[in-house]
Amino acid sequence: MRTTSGYQAEGTPAVLERTTLERRDLRPDDIAVRVDHCGVCHTDLHALDAHSPGGLPLVPGHEFTGVVTEAGGEVTRFRPGDPVAVGNIVDSCGICPPCRAGQENFCREFPTLTYQGTDRHDGSTTLGGYSREYVVREAFAYPLPDGLDPAATAPLLCAGITVWEPLRSLGAGPDTRVAVAGLGGLGHLAVKLAVALGAETSVISRSADKAEDARRLGARDLVVSTDPAQVAAARDRFDIVIDTIATEHDLKPYLGMVAMDGTLSQVGYLGSSTVEMMDLLAGRKKLSSAGSGGRPATAELLRFCAEHGVTADVEVLPSARVAEAVDRLRRGDVRYRFVLDLSDLD
Amino acid sequence: MRTTSGYQAEGTPAVLERTTLERRDLRPDDIAVRVDHCGVCHTDLHALDAHSPGGLPLVPGHEFTGVVTEAGGEVTRFRPGDPVAVGNIVDSCGICPPCRAGQENFCREFPTLTYQGTDRHDGSTTLGGYSREYVVREAFAYPLPDGLDPAATAPLLCAGITVWEPLRSLGAGPDTRVAVAGLGGLGHLAVKLAVALGAETSVISRSADKAEDARRLGARDLVVSTDPAQVAAARDRFDIVIDTIATEHDLKPYLGMVAMDGTLSQVGYLGSSTVEMMDLLAGRKKLSSAGSGGRPATAELLRFCAEHGVTADVEVLPSARVAEAVDRLRRGDVRYRFVLDLSDLD
Repeated sequence: MRTTSGYQAEGTPAVLERTTLERRDLRPDDIAVRVDHCGVCHTDLHALDAHSPGGLPLVPGHEFTGVVTEAGGEVTRFRPGDPVAVGNIVDSCGICPPCRAGQENFCREFPTLTYQGTDRHDGSTTLGGYSREYVVREAFAYPLPDGLDPAATAPLLCAGITVWEPLRSLGAGPDTRVAVAGLGGLGHLAVKLAVALGAETSVISRSADKAEDARRLGARDLVVSTDPAQVAAARDRFDIVIDTIATEHDLKPYLGMVAMDGTLSQVGYLGSSTVEMMDLLAGRKKLSSAGSGGRPATAELLRFCAEHGVTADVEVLPSARVAEAVDRLRRGDVRYRFVLDLSDLD
Repeated sequence: MRTTSGYQAEGTPAVLERTTLERRDLRPDDIAVRVDHCGVCHTDLHALDAHSPGGLPLVPGHEFTGVVTEAGGEVTRFRPGDPVAVGNIVDSCGICPPCRAGQENFCREFPTLTYQGTDRHDGSTTLGGYSREYVVREAFAYPLPDGLDPAATAPLLCAGITVWEPLRSLGAGPDTRVAVAGLGGLGHLAVKLAVALGAETSVISRSADKAEDARRLGARDLVVSTDPAQVAAARDRFDIVIDTIATEHDLKPYLGMVAMDGTLSQVGYLGSSTVEMMDLLAGRKKLSSAGSGGRPATAELLRFCAEHGVTADVEVLPSARVAEAVDRLRRGDVRYRFVLDLSDLD
């Protein structure tokens, strides 16, 4: 086994404590990655909240960038020194129809998650990217394109791909009108990506506070969802609504803004929702959801972002301040993504 | 005013009684239609159940065929003697975006329904097609194509268009796999239309009883929704599921059969449903709904049905037996649509 340093959840309520972690010895198709930057995702909060002593070990972190330090004997795509990125999926069955279609996120045997997943070979629990080293199958690592800032790129690997897949599968482009509900980690990337795809892009937010940010990100305007007049004026307006709101909420006002034959894709809240069929019927509107992404789409996203200069707006903190990042994310006090700099673990 | 005979709801519980009805004198853009055949729709049952003395007058019937007997001075599309069909919408605002797009069923001012609607000119309550004569704006009547049996065509005007619009808007055709859940009035037409469109078509039903009927209608096979093995085998199988089940039901097994990026269109039950976002996320599946149709799609449907010889499987009853039709429909004892022959009202 190899050892590295990282942050593991301990106690109740769970607190992240620096500790020594074990990583597996490299298999022939593995690479070892020195993790330089890891985004702090809402999923990490949920995992911390759900953690209890005696449960699966928890080292969060599933959107990170770094440098390859070692490669297994059969590795062909990477060499030591290569910049690399890893997202929230590190393995999958590889043979089910979704896997064969390059949608490992929908693997029928369930993909191996980057943390609290079960390794398909030795049954161990995966430990995430809040650590200085990660060992991963090369097939689930992505070359980091030149010109992309590694810290600001890390969030593309989870937040970015989660909004990229619905934007692409729903056809966002020059002839479409896209609205992004909620302007947080996912939302601000959805705006940047929709704008870069050429869509006429708007933001839907509970208050007008973020109007300036919305415009700075490239949005045309902001619709205040708590203002009935603005909601009414936006009726049937958007071909695609990417709903990044992280908590349960009434879908009716958002469905009302979807255009005929358009789609509301809910990517922030993944519990159960009540839907009035009449809200869908009046305009043959569609409700969908998306999360994470397959390998081809992730690679495509990274190429697209390099070409269009799209990265996340990040606040980089030394990893020793991870508790502060978690606390502030919980209070929504971040524009728009915390990224941990893991170099202080050396 | 003109007078005619028809069946109006009286008493509690509501019973349809033969009576004399008034029809408006023809406006310049009106035609008078001698109603020969009128389908008995589930909506008629709901309206009867909801009817109370003192409420809006109720003469059901919103899918009928007949012959033009008189035309107003500005009518251009019809002459007396022309065979004609009328559906569940008889007017709309005509100027809102959906109306301008030919989707009068989504009229923002709400379309005028064929019965228990409010006439846009005199404010009167519309009385439906369970009667010998109907007066309608010519713009909301459709020429009945040659070669289509008038009795078996009547149900196309509501049941047919309700499944035609989602099949068309979702792209049903030679390269798609369509399943129809529920084999009743809507469902049997959805099967026939999907087959005629060239889609590989299946039926999903609670029991295997309808397997022979499904095949006779052109379906490739029948999936028994209460058999977990069959449901599992059909996982991710269909690009389009047209769900015609008329009562509230768990969407999970039906969403499970939707293929990646496919759509479940709920057209039978129009209340509220609970949806697990994870059932949509795993495959970026979509939930939609549809109902009724616009004028262009209705005209297209009638042309398509004439070309492909598609009509409803009907049991024609003299209108004097309307109570029997209502009662048997309530018990599901019809394959697949009752049609009233109104000629006995003469």
